[in-house]
Amino acid sequence: MFTIVGAGLAGTLLACYLGRLGCRVDLHERRSDPRTHAQDRGRSINLALSVRGIHALREVGLADEVLKSGILMRGRMIHTAAGQLTFQPYGKDDSEALYSVSRAGLNLLLVEAAAKLPSVRLHFDRRCTGFDPGSNVLEFHDGSRVPAEVIVGADGAYSAIRTQMQKQERFNYRQDYLTHGYKELTIPAGPSGAFQLEKHALHIWPRGSFMMIALPNQDGSFTCTLFWPMEGPNSFAALTAPIDILRFFEQEFPDAVPLLPNLVEDFLHNPTGALVTIRCQPWHQGGKAVLIGDACHAVVPFLGQGMNAAFEDCTVLTQCVRTHAPNWEAAFRDFEARRKEHLDVLADLCIENFIEMRDRVGSRWFVLKKKLAVALHWLFPRWYLPLYTTIEFTRIPYAEALRRARRQDWIVRGVLAGLGLLGLLAVWQSL
Amino acid sequence: MFTIVGAGLAGTLLACYLGRLGCRVDLHERRSDPRTHAQDRGRSINLALSVRGIHALREVGLADEVLKSGILMRGRMIHTAAGQLTFQPYGKDDSEALYSVSRAGLNLLLVEAAAKLPSVRLHFDRRCTGFDPGSNVLEFHDGSRVPAEVIVGADGAYSAIRTQMQKQERFNYRQDYLTHGYKELTIPAGPSGAFQLEKHALHIWPRGSFMMIALPNQDGSFTCTLFWPMEGPNSFAALTAPIDILRFFEQEFPDAVPLLPNLVEDFLHNPTGALVTIRCQPWHQGGKAVLIGDACHAVVPFLGQGMNAAFEDCTVLTQCVRTHAPNWEAAFRDFEARRKEHLDVLADLCIENFIEMRDRVGSRWFVLKKKLAVALHWLFPRWYLPLYTTIEFTRIPYAEALRRARRQDWIVRGVLAGLGLLGLLAVWQSL
Repeated sequence: MFTIVGAGLAGTLLACYLGRLGCRVDLHERRSDPRTHAQDRGRSINLALSVRGIHALREVGLADEVLKSGILMRGRMIHTAAGQLTFQPYGKDDSEALYSVSRAGLNLLLVEAAAKLPSVRLHFDRRCTGFDPGSNVLEFHDGSRVPAEVIVGADGAYSAIRTQMQKQERFNYRQDYLTHGYKELTIPAGPSGAFQLEKHALHIWPRGSFMMIALPNQDGSFTCTLFWPMEGPNSFAALTAPIDILRFFEQEFPDAVPLLPNLVEDFLHNPTGALVTIRCQPWHQGGKAVLIGDACHAVVPFLGQGMNAAFEDCTVLTQCVRTHAPNWEAAFRDFEARRKEHLDVLADLCIENFIEMRDRVGSRWFVLKKKLAVALHWLFPRWYLPLYTTIEFTRIPYAEALRRARRQDWIVRGVLAGLGLLGLLAVWQSL
Repeated sequence: MFTIVGAGLAGTLLACYLGRLGCRVDLHERRSDPRTHAQDRGRSINLALSVRGIHALREVGLADEVLKSGILMRGRMIHTAAGQLTFQPYGKDDSEALYSVSRAGLNLLLVEAAAKLPSVRLHFDRRCTGFDPGSNVLEFHDGSRVPAEVIVGADGAYSAIRTQMQKQERFNYRQDYLTHGYKELTIPAGPSGAFQLEKHALHIWPRGSFMMIALPNQDGSFTCTLFWPMEGPNSFAALTAPIDILRFFEQEFPDAVPLLPNLVEDFLHNPTGALVTIRCQPWHQGGKAVLIGDACHAVVPFLGQGMNAAFEDCTVLTQCVRTHAPNWEAAFRDFEARRKEHLDVLADLCIENFIEMRDRVGSRWFVLKKKLAVALHWLFPRWYLPLYTTIEFTRIPYAEALRRARRQDWIVRGVLAGLGLLGLLAVWQSL
């Protein structure tokens, strides 16, 4: 009775959730079956999996298998322009760490898991072009039409389901592009599959107005992502001559150049991706259609929360379906009420974290504040949670995480100011 | 060489501006020719014309004719729920006043003025459905195609030209609906065309979470607009029984009920309009297409600036065309650079002013602050301009008006705090 459009990460996980409840699920996907066809080079090659995503995978019995093939990243490794390295741990131990996982590998695993469920049917090579809001009939690129009781749009930032919903009256919608885009480059494995950079870290080359990052892959390689302006004097649009590309990397990322043997070809041939934030409201059309994941809340990748938030959508939507079935409208309204505020906060935090990652992460003041936060978290593990820790390593909803962080920061500032005052008084007394 | 889509207020005024420069202009309009067909009851019946709009009309030689048929509104007339009236003047004299003008009358006058210009050609009953961004060929509902050197999208909040531009890469776009909608009602003229409320005022019935306003028409009637939630327990959706409509008005607007003889029929038959704010960026596609007015910056009507801002667009765009011709890309980039920031500020101010009008305008504190502002403006006419005055009665760009108002307010607060302190000291001394 659920027809999911999009067999990406969110759509397949939701099929697993609903299939395990015994719901009939039809899943339609534009691309070919990944079990029989190699997947296209699509978007990012690997992703950072954190607690929200792991929890969802655990609920459908897949967490152990995914974590086994992931690579633990215990912290950030900062690369300065002079080639110096500094390691900043994410948390107090391995319970507060990220996993680098392969997007294609995880998607294949989810497709296989969904396919094993008796009430789930998968349909590939079927590009949905929209639906008729009156009859709830889905329309496909080949002209075929499939009636649906309930449509779930899990078809990503450029969702055809949302595009149809945008035509309803008074639909609030917003798409904001960063002036930066991204390009992926590969650091291949060294001799006999050796990792050429620290394996258990997320590498960052912060450069003020731009940055490069790298995440490890299981085969010993790293996928680098350069975030850089799309247009202007220093930009993807301006940098096209091989000699200029090499010169740029030698100046900005000298320690990475020897590890990037195909730098110029990769740079010239790999696509440049745009970075979009999508917000909309409502997320559903009555009890007939609902959106999840990037289709209703695409965020920029600087907190590594796109997939994790989409997985959390599946967790919450399944709870709402269980609570309200068969009143789908109530289920979807509840889902939106429980998620929308938090995803709006996440969208803002992701954009802010871009500035933190590319600019402040390298500064002494930032390092000092991070150290103070780690110390406070160690002293008061239940009370003091840095915002980043709450987002990555707890399931506290995003907006609550932000409120909590603001409250803590005020208290810490107050205590510091009080201590400063006491110190001044002590000095005064001793004179 | 300019093909304008939309012969509403912005499109026809721009045709007058460009036609007077001798530019060839083709103007395409979806509706029938207003010179030969009565116009549909479309959007608002009358509009508040203020300095920015008057300036633009003066530049094309039409201001005197428009003002002659407009009705001067010298201030706000506040109607309490008990039926008491309070008049709040807008400014120090009639140079700081609004004009209530008829949308249809003004549009007809602009069409006639454009038609008189030898280089302007008008085409009615031609609904544009989009354009081919490669060839710049406009497409119409009847299948006809018209090549254009430069396209100007003056086709309103639901612009077909913008919809086409949204398909370009990295187009930022945002549409936000208020939860309130609006409905128009008519207070007919009294015996022998007498105005049944004060003629030279904009009437407001502020009721906290909603409000009604009324603007005078030349024929002695007033057009009332009720701003009320679209959905919920007290809303347009909930109020459908004649007896409930009457009861609602008798409770909330008792002094208006005797003046609204067709209240129930008007309420049931007149359409309920939605209130949308549209923001987008860029406003142009290279040197091939550019947007003006609601097509790129629709605002909610609570500062009466929609038309005035669109007219100011025509003033600025014409300046940019004169400066940069025939480099249209430079002209449109300059136009956007000179307007975008200000229209973003206006969009926010319009939403904020809704709260002021429906809620605060009736409070003593608001009246006191307004009186202080008027006094300061009278004492320091060159230095102290209340924000509302700057928006309605000067041509200072909106963002600059806001910065100026904030600066002034800090100074006034500082002076008041200083005076308060001095007063306290004086009391202290005298004890």
